[in-house]
Amino acid sequence: MSEGRLIGIGLGPGDPELLTVKAVRLLQAAPIVAYFAKAGRRGNARAIVDGWLTPANEELPLHYPVTTEIPFADQAYRDALAAFYEASAERIAAHLRAGRDVALLSEGDPLFYGSFMHLYVRLKSRFATAIVPGVTGMCGAWSAAGAPMTWGDDVLVVAPATLPLKELIGRLEKADGAAIMKIGSHLGKVREALGAAGMLSRAIYVERATMSNEVVMPLADKTDDVAPYFAMVLVPGEGRRP
Amino acid sequence: MSEGRLIGIGLGPGDPELLTVKAVRLLQAAPIVAYFAKAGRRGNARAIVDGWLTPANEELPLHYPVTTEIPFADQAYRDALAAFYEASAERIAAHLRAGRDVALLSEGDPLFYGSFMHLYVRLKSRFATAIVPGVTGMCGAWSAAGAPMTWGDDVLVVAPATLPLKELIGRLEKADGAAIMKIGSHLGKVREALGAAGMLSRAIYVERATMSNEVVMPLADKTDDVAPYFAMVLVPGEGRRP
Repeated sequence: MSEGRLIGIGLGPGDPELLTVKAVRLLQAAPIVAYFAKAGRRGNARAIVDGWLTPANEELPLHYPVTTEIPFADQAYRDALAAFYEASAERIAAHLRAGRDVALLSEGDPLFYGSFMHLYVRLKSRFATAIVPGVTGMCGAWSAAGAPMTWGDDVLVVAPATLPLKELIGRLEKADGAAIMKIGSHLGKVREALGAAGMLSRAIYVERATMSNEVVMPLADKTDDVAPYFAMVLVPGEGRRP
Repeated sequence: MSEGRLIGIGLGPGDPELLTVKAVRLLQAAPIVAYFAKAGRRGNARAIVDGWLTPANEELPLHYPVTTEIPFADQAYRDALAAFYEASAERIAAHLRAGRDVALLSEGDPLFYGSFMHLYVRLKSRFATAIVPGVTGMCGAWSAAGAPMTWGDDVLVVAPATLPLKELIGRLEKADGAAIMKIGSHLGKVREALGAAGMLSRAIYVERATMSNEVVMPLADKTDDVAPYFAMVLVPGEGRRP
């Protein structure tokens, strides 16, 4: 009996119709469908594929450990996550050894800030793997905004809002266009960095792009600094165009 | 009679199965399917959708003017392109005014270095538009390479190889991971910039990712500097991971 294959499935930005044809085909053919979720939740990845799963797909939810009482920067947090990824990799490995393919869901694209990567690096030397690229969250966001992002020789910088202010300014000063991810509690700092880099007036704020409760507005029109973790700020490039 | 809608369709990196479900649906429903191509060629965008078109789709090829005798930096080249985009926009506008939706094909994602943008900016204030985001060429490339690109707080820099050497070095020095696009005749310069930025040893060279003649190798193993325009060099990020 041959071993199963780990398949990373990019789900795209949120609209279930933004799965690729290949993602749907490999998902539906997979005996095991694994996905990350917070404890007690079904999770966003699982919600996106709700209309695509068939009764033949056996589900393998991987529930993050409850870590809200541990600060993010703490070593104990990283240890808890590492142990969780190790245990999750072994749960998947057991299916692969038994000859069952495992499709591991990944919002956006699997290799771009994806949790998929944590299991992929633990399993790729031991098992066959395949990766189905997906539409990234940022592509979903700038499509929702109708904002052309990069022209001609424009450089796009993708930066997480979690960076320290000074670091964020330094990166933005070397950008023509920018996508700032993981906004969460960092929106005040992001405004300050954009101001320092001369980008504030053309920044666009986007929440839950391509989903039913999508929000798109000029950042200047947003009067508070309350934002979910997956909110994004876009700065379109202004490069040469004929 | 109501007017038609301009729909930008992201086609993804090349594998026809990497169109999204939404892209296939809107493409097949569109009475007019427009695409860019070099004079005398069918073009890559049209080739990707070959298996998806139906007899109900009327094709509208938009052939670039022959400009090989004009240097790229020349004003005459830009004038010829601008005139071509103007004329193409008007050909599409005629269909839209007659009430026919026009799907305009775009390799990768429509708003990320896409020719789609040149017609979109000329038509979006006059007609209804919609954009279907696509899997970018760079996502296809790093999936083909099996290379996780961004971890934790990593910053990704996307830069065209057409930038001058010094400029390219300055951008790469502010990158954790990088995707260098449009390699063409610039591979020697790209090697030099990666060396100066301390990234050469981990760089990956990718051609025609997700297509049948895909090439993936460590850049260090590529013994010549011959590369097609759409080749890419990737530098995976190495950020924190539990």
